[in-house]
Amino acid sequence: MDSPVETRRFVLPHVAAMEGYVPGEQPQGGSFIKLNTNENPYPPSPKAKQALVDAVDDRLRLYPDPTGRAFRETAAALHGVEPDMILAGNGSDDVLTILTRAFVGPGDLAAYPTPSYLLYSTLIKLQNGREHVVPFDDAWRLDVSGFLEPGVKLAYLANPNSPSGTALSPAEVARLAERLECPLVVDEAYGDFAREDCVSLVKTHPNVIVTRSFSKGYSLAGLRLGYLIADPSIVHELNKVKDSYNCDALSLAAGKAALEDQAYLAETRAKILATRARLADALSELGWSVTDSQANFVWALGGPDAEATFQELKRRNIFVRLMRYPGYPTGLRITVGTDAEVERLLEVLREIA
Amino acid sequence: MDSPVETRRFVLPHVAAMEGYVPGEQPQGGSFIKLNTNENPYPPSPKAKQALVDAVDDRLRLYPDPTGRAFRETAAALHGVEPDMILAGNGSDDVLTILTRAFVGPGDLAAYPTPSYLLYSTLIKLQNGREHVVPFDDAWRLDVSGFLEPGVKLAYLANPNSPSGTALSPAEVARLAERLECPLVVDEAYGDFAREDCVSLVKTHPNVIVTRSFSKGYSLAGLRLGYLIADPSIVHELNKVKDSYNCDALSLAAGKAALEDQAYLAETRAKILATRARLADALSELGWSVTDSQANFVWALGGPDAEATFQELKRRNIFVRLMRYPGYPTGLRITVGTDAEVERLLEVLREIA
Repeated sequence: MDSPVETRRFVLPHVAAMEGYVPGEQPQGGSFIKLNTNENPYPPSPKAKQALVDAVDDRLRLYPDPTGRAFRETAAALHGVEPDMILAGNGSDDVLTILTRAFVGPGDLAAYPTPSYLLYSTLIKLQNGREHVVPFDDAWRLDVSGFLEPGVKLAYLANPNSPSGTALSPAEVARLAERLECPLVVDEAYGDFAREDCVSLVKTHPNVIVTRSFSKGYSLAGLRLGYLIADPSIVHELNKVKDSYNCDALSLAAGKAALEDQAYLAETRAKILATRARLADALSELGWSVTDSQANFVWALGGPDAEATFQELKRRNIFVRLMRYPGYPTGLRITVGTDAEVERLLEVLREIA
Repeated sequence: MDSPVETRRFVLPHVAAMEGYVPGEQPQGGSFIKLNTNENPYPPSPKAKQALVDAVDDRLRLYPDPTGRAFRETAAALHGVEPDMILAGNGSDDVLTILTRAFVGPGDLAAYPTPSYLLYSTLIKLQNGREHVVPFDDAWRLDVSGFLEPGVKLAYLANPNSPSGTALSPAEVARLAERLECPLVVDEAYGDFAREDCVSLVKTHPNVIVTRSFSKGYSLAGLRLGYLIADPSIVHELNKVKDSYNCDALSLAAGKAALEDQAYLAETRAKILATRARLADALSELGWSVTDSQANFVWALGGPDAEATFQELKRRNIFVRLMRYPGYPTGLRITVGTDAEVERLLEVLREIA
């Protein structure tokens, strides 16, 4: 019989050696301003909520449609592609997991920028792959030739990027895709807030795979729904890797309704972009250096001490994200909240400046 | 630029070579009797549905609790274990995926019985592992010494098993766990319909991991929720492998409410067990050989031609599952429906006999 401690020896060595991805703090209950995990400050579309209530019925005893056909048809129509170019996932994290498991084997090289979404590193490690990191420069520009390392099996590009909020243009992404010998995952989790997107590249560049999320633009982080747009031959292979019923009946129904309510997306997006501009200006006035964000957050550097500011905000129940990346200055990634939340944040920042 | 067909060369060879798991048919819409994927014929608990409606609010804009603490506390209290012995998943398929990724590396051996849940094979193949199969004998008994192959890194045991419906006793499972040098996953997806379960073994045998589902006993297949019960040191490692937010806020809320409504589970379970006995008796009278099922289905063999019966039932909008396993007679796995559904099924079977 094993002692509890010894059970760990059963675990694959590369898993045992990992620390695991640590998501941003999710305080439960209480009164606070939460600007740390890039949730949308506005509620989901009333039509999405109605679709959920309508779907809470006795049919929940049945398995959902394994590939979410009705959802895929709506997403395909929105993006001007075919339904067999869409794969739905349990959040875009599930989609990124499926992609990594399909393309990155043990010892294989996979490339991603830094500073960027830390999950890419976790996913590569889980496959026991090797990481190739492409650095942003001091001015938060990305020299994409860094991706062109021989042997790279998969490239991830958060576009817009987190924490920088910066984005490459579709033309730049197209040129990168043409030079790559592997799939290029364009992670558009923040694409709903950007000036342009790369969806049209999927048709001209079959190695481009665009991923989308309902957690940011559509205010449905609690539901876990995302999808990807890719060449049908790629989607066919990815279907083998996903869990059979990876999306539940409720999220598929809500996601479809949310996609159909583009007017609501446009309205909340416009508010967030206006608040983002105001927040960026105010932070600049307070001495922070703020990047040109195309996402629903700003990246603030070089102002008053980031760590001290983070702690003082937290003490006052305002959660922002303190981000440390080796070789880069520590910064604050601040989600764009409502006007009232951002006013309160700025009030405190002025007070403690 | 790649042609669409060539994109497949990016996929890992062991994935490209796979066929992928094919779930049972999920006809959408129309009028039919669905007895093919072991869904519960009764609706979910009214308390679970109420919990869902209550959770459809603006908080869906926020990420869920990453490890579902409130849900885990309820599950732990029900089973008499600690919350850090529970890991929640997006269906028990997600839990089985996490387990396989944590314990089975490329080339590693993993063992499972046959005929059994076909997903085990798919999960091992996705890890590029090697399969060791432990056969049931002609009388649907399992000689567990077949699991004791040197080098096995993970053993799966569906208990009750599908399609046979048979189950090993906790004492037999304990003896197997003592002889194994690896974790033993006791897949209790059908445990809610069985005479006994293996949860108490987790405390005495730290290599035992019990998995549970809300898709069968709790009538919530559409929601995708499952969990496992394991030694805390194992749960700690598995948390590294799961997606950060693998369970959504709605399913966690409904799962908690469903677990709290044990009276409803007992009531629907009793009805299903009574109908199961009636169905098994009637099939025997019609010349089928029926195993002693501890699940919400029966396994019917050796009667009239299974394939012809399956096709004729399908033609009349009655879906059962035709199951072929090499070396075993083809059989029909028939989910226990409502009394009315089972009466209609028997009526047709008598007519075409």
